[in-house]
Amino acid sequence: MAASLTAYRIKGVWYSRIKLCRKFFERQILSYVALRKSSISADSQFEVLELLMDLCQNRHFLTSGHIRMGFVNSYGPLGAELKRNLISQWWKSVVLSREQVFGVETLHHLVTATGQNESSLKVLDNRMFEEIIKNEELTKKQMVASFQELLHKGGTLRKNLIQGAIEQYVYSLNLVNQKLPFGLAQIGVSYEPETISVELSDSVDSVSEVTSASLVWFSAARTSSQWLDYWVRQRLLWWRKFAIGPSKFISSDYQDNEGNKGTALYYNFPSGKEPVEVILNLGNRQLLQVHHGNGTKIQGRDGRKNVIPCVVSVSGNLDRGVMAYLCDSFHLEDSTVLKKKMQHRKVLKIHPNLAPIKVALNMGRGPTQELRQVCQGLCQELLDHGIAVWPGHLETVQSSMEQLCLKYDEMGVIFTIVISDSTLENGIVVLRNRDTTMKEMLHISEVKNFLMKYIDAASNI
Amino acid sequence: MAASLTAYRIKGVWYSRIKLCRKFFERQILSYVALRKSSISADSQFEVLELLMDLCQNRHFLTSGHIRMGFVNSYGPLGAELKRNLISQWWKSVVLSREQVFGVETLHHLVTATGQNESSLKVLDNRMFEEIIKNEELTKKQMVASFQELLHKGGTLRKNLIQGAIEQYVYSLNLVNQKLPFGLAQIGVSYEPETISVELSDSVDSVSEVTSASLVWFSAARTSSQWLDYWVRQRLLWWRKFAIGPSKFISSDYQDNEGNKGTALYYNFPSGKEPVEVILNLGNRQLLQVHHGNGTKIQGRDGRKNVIPCVVSVSGNLDRGVMAYLCDSFHLEDSTVLKKKMQHRKVLKIHPNLAPIKVALNMGRGPTQELRQVCQGLCQELLDHGIAVWPGHLETVQSSMEQLCLKYDEMGVIFTIVISDSTLENGIVVLRNRDTTMKEMLHISEVKNFLMKYIDAASNI
Repeated sequence: MAASLTAYRIKGVWYSRIKLCRKFFERQILSYVALRKSSISADSQFEVLELLMDLCQNRHFLTSGHIRMGFVNSYGPLGAELKRNLISQWWKSVVLSREQVFGVETLHHLVTATGQNESSLKVLDNRMFEEIIKNEELTKKQMVASFQELLHKGGTLRKNLIQGAIEQYVYSLNLVNQKLPFGLAQIGVSYEPETISVELSDSVDSVSEVTSASLVWFSAARTSSQWLDYWVRQRLLWWRKFAIGPSKFISSDYQDNEGNKGTALYYNFPSGKEPVEVILNLGNRQLLQVHHGNGTKIQGRDGRKNVIPCVVSVSGNLDRGVMAYLCDSFHLEDSTVLKKKMQHRKVLKIHPNLAPIKVALNMGRGPTQELRQVCQGLCQELLDHGIAVWPGHLETVQSSMEQLCLKYDEMGVIFTIVISDSTLENGIVVLRNRDTTMKEMLHISEVKNFLMKYIDAASNI
Repeated sequence: MAASLTAYRIKGVWYSRIKLCRKFFERQILSYVALRKSSISADSQFEVLELLMDLCQNRHFLTSGHIRMGFVNSYGPLGAELKRNLISQWWKSVVLSREQVFGVETLHHLVTATGQNESSLKVLDNRMFEEIIKNEELTKKQMVASFQELLHKGGTLRKNLIQGAIEQYVYSLNLVNQKLPFGLAQIGVSYEPETISVELSDSVDSVSEVTSASLVWFSAARTSSQWLDYWVRQRLLWWRKFAIGPSKFISSDYQDNEGNKGTALYYNFPSGKEPVEVILNLGNRQLLQVHHGNGTKIQGRDGRKNVIPCVVSVSGNLDRGVMAYLCDSFHLEDSTVLKKKMQHRKVLKIHPNLAPIKVALNMGRGPTQELRQVCQGLCQELLDHGIAVWPGHLETVQSSMEQLCLKYDEMGVIFTIVISDSTLENGIVVLRNRDTTMKEMLHISEVKNFLMKYIDAASNI
């Protein structure tokens, strides 16, 4: 009874919230229900997760609406920026800092027919559909035939970015003078038919969207297993680099539905591990298939030999990555101020490179007009140098410094700057650090360089 | 006869190439055919355009394949990087450098039913479709009903990013303390049913994808026309900033199919102007509709008053933007070397901020091993500082310096660096500028700073 009540609560509260990573959360919830049956300690873990979800919604990381009203869940401004930062770090690490990886961009829908028995999402023009329906002369059989043709014509939404890159392989060979190894990378949305259990969903749309980051690496067969190991090491280091608890990112053997072997990198969420990136050795089957087995055309040079390359695929789920770093960075801390109210200070200790907002500007005591001008000047200077600023000086609702810091900690803002009448006198601002909660004094002219060095240093650790 | 032959040639050569911006090129071709009938000067313009398209394909800006073989046209490595740079400049200009614009990210498919009579692209799960077909008990009428339900369930692919932002409006109001004006921005793919004339297409898929950049700006009705003017000015300046021929970007009045008025920014392509960005005053109709006319919920603060805001929409087509800058930057120059062969030197004078590759490294005369090491060191230093490098030192095919420069000019590489035995002696490298073709000497230790300053200076003009 207790378990089913909990499930109901979960269904009511959680489900409507986290449609975004629906499949993921479905599993989280189911494993929570299982845990709940077996032990008590799961309760506190669930409460932590629930606090995090509340925070993500209140602080504009994830948005949500009522499904029946037709709203879709997606990223709010802070979540969108966090994800953008994650995307740009992935790209920097895999593409921009390497000589042999090139970015490509392919279409979201594939015209090539993929396996017919596989489940997939088809696109179709509703005018054409209406035309077929309106044609009353068609027999049932003819109508089915027309629909099938229509479906065939519209193309299929891509399930991953691998095929797009493989299609570009021959064209790209030319770019590298036929020399192996090299890689083609792409970040974009891929689509899956929704397979959520009916039990948990009443009126749900049937499409799930994921932002994938994909590297397709072409190397000689003799070196492909070394390259697989290389990319596993590289990618695991990368995921751990931005984490407070790096050991929650782990690697383990993996095999996909088609029998391809490799390694998956998991994040250990409160209720179980979920893969954030999968590295697989795909062999040359798909390459031969896409290029119609044209062996000579697809040969690359490995030293002095011409060989048909093997494909190693690195495929990350960046939406799940965002969830992983939100969980990783979420900390509950005792606060003397709040203890009486039985509350904790909630902080998102997001890595400086990923934090959506680096610094918040606020006005302390002093003449409003002048302070606002100073804030505006500093704000523009920081924005011009690509530092994301929260313009707290534009807010018209008065808040105490404590309230502000509580809010900024929940937003994952790294530094809070207060500009007050003493700034007007001697140029000194107060700078508070999210992670240490320490306050420091700094001359206003040094703020920009200090922040740039701080963020830069974090990326080189 | 001549015209129809030309059309055939266009169909054969062009059409298979430029599926990417298909609708756009269809119109280009049709207007070319019209021009061809009326004057002679069109010929040379067309030849220039054809040279550009050859270059884009040879130099890995745009890729293509044979449609019947199932390949899709899309961006090659250089085009993908050019587009990425354009996207990041748009984002910087509209979002990152402003206090009142926030990025969001919404789903590619909408669950809300849009106007039923409108043409739109529906998504459907082919397993469900197969299930309906296999059910032999269904009458024709029942089958139609099942299909209609299936279509309703799958959702619609978005045609623009406006609705996604408007759905997030109420949630975002909270973020800005109800204070108007503010904006929500997003860059992503949107979809259109393909409306290419049958005459020009044999076996074409029916979906067209465009990368849209969208700002939805919420302001009080009394100021919305001022804001419209503001954004038109800002956006026109932005497009012109990166152009060699800024006057080819022009603005003129525009009205969309639904009667919304505003201004469109056009690029004057060789065969006619095409809009690259449209700024419209959408009023509050859609806002009220999405939020079910809930007037109090959608009110924002304009000074001391509570008002229902007006929506000004800025909507750019970044794929067409890429084409515009490719046309703009394409220059044919007389070359003494090539004159005998009746050829021109082809250069893509792409703006330093947009150029996909900033610098190419090459080895001159000297000991191969040592020179390669020096190149590798410099290459890594530049990559680490986010400067896109072409690793010419990895190429094993020998080319003369002249051949290399011809190639790099076509790729739009801004600087070509040659490292030779004199570099080993005194650290001096030779640096050749794409636009001036002048060669300069520079100490190898100064290369990184020189390039960073050069690119930075270009963004502040």
